[in-house]
Amino acid sequence: MEDIRIIEVKQSVFADNDADAQRLRDQLKQEKTFLLNLMSSPGSGKTTTLLALAKELEGKLRWAVMEADIDSVVDAKTMENAGVKAIQIHTGGMCHLDADMTRQGLSCLDTSELDLVILENVGNLVCPAEFDTGAVKNITILSVPEGDDKPLKYPLMYETCDLLVINKIDVLDYFDFDCEKVVEYAKMRNPEIEVLFVSAKTGEGIGELASWVVEAVKHWNC
Amino acid sequence: MEDIRIIEVKQSVFADNDADAQRLRDQLKQEKTFLLNLMSSPGSGKTTTLLALAKELEGKLRWAVMEADIDSVVDAKTMENAGVKAIQIHTGGMCHLDADMTRQGLSCLDTSELDLVILENVGNLVCPAEFDTGAVKNITILSVPEGDDKPLKYPLMYETCDLLVINKIDVLDYFDFDCEKVVEYAKMRNPEIEVLFVSAKTGEGIGELASWVVEAVKHWNC
Repeated sequence: MEDIRIIEVKQSVFADNDADAQRLRDQLKQEKTFLLNLMSSPGSGKTTTLLALAKELEGKLRWAVMEADIDSVVDAKTMENAGVKAIQIHTGGMCHLDADMTRQGLSCLDTSELDLVILENVGNLVCPAEFDTGAVKNITILSVPEGDDKPLKYPLMYETCDLLVINKIDVLDYFDFDCEKVVEYAKMRNPEIEVLFVSAKTGEGIGELASWVVEAVKHWNC
Repeated sequence: MEDIRIIEVKQSVFADNDADAQRLRDQLKQEKTFLLNLMSSPGSGKTTTLLALAKELEGKLRWAVMEADIDSVVDAKTMENAGVKAIQIHTGGMCHLDADMTRQGLSCLDTSELDLVILENVGNLVCPAEFDTGAVKNITILSVPEGDDKPLKYPLMYETCDLLVINKIDVLDYFDFDCEKVVEYAKMRNPEIEVLFVSAKTGEGIGELASWVVEAVKHWNC
């Protein structure tokens, strides 16, 4: 466990999180570091997707991961074991990260040496969507076993995300999950949202996800 | 949709939710109505478990369901279609229910005619565990696809629950889920927690869950 750096972050004292998030985004733009915010329910496969992505991003981007959890170092350890630079953020019981909490995490990484930092937010479909972290893009993962009705029940998550990743498509046969309906429901919430279908376990679709990330980073640095 | 009653609840103005929850519990005790709070991540199978439970509880208890969601009437409609009395609570974007929000929902049910009300809380492993709803017992569902490490990451949920229901055991073969480890992790958080393994889809273990509920209601009314 000695390799894992744990940062205990405190909720921001700034009243205006949106303004603070914009300041952080501007600062990261100057450093040419792209911050990507990854959100989902607990157990949708955020860490497994990042593990799969790691192979695809090798040699293409210099990147690191910030794992946010209420407790444990499970995820940061998993990423470090796969050779990805990772830190673990503990939120002190908080259900989300705000921009200043994100900044506290970033201060423990040498961002000037990184093209991309992926923030794996606390597993929660509600609260993280309410707080701008300073990220350039937001991705949400929905896994097949969770059901296709989630955009109906958790509107803000889908409104705030640029990309919806449907994960665990390798088990589509064992669940009642309608791939057309989920896209229809997500577009009802956000007509601009892009959708990719992947299996982090088998690697299906992960190449497309990696291309999406690389393109987003490239576009931002232009 | 005309059958579904939707109640838009507002967050409590009471500063002390714990005291308010105790007041609600005392009042329900006098009416001999047992309030059960059901929590989990989005998509763990709360509604499907209630559907399966409905068959087992028939003729044993007079009961109703309060479905709490940020949006949609999907769940209340599902329960009504199965012949269970159900109301839909909309939380106005809130990620949890407090005791007063629960009271607002209960006021739309004739609780004096009910032995049991099951509150299906907002799908969220973090915030609902922080607020006593006035329930006599708390149950959390963890589904196999979410992974066995959830008690490590979301401590409070497991500390506050009386029963952990492991759902979707019909797909154990397709996921890396260690049934012994999950019990070990849950007991680390709460040595008193009871654990049942079920598949709401196939009905496996639902009889035991129904017995647990019936016994809890009976015990409380003694």
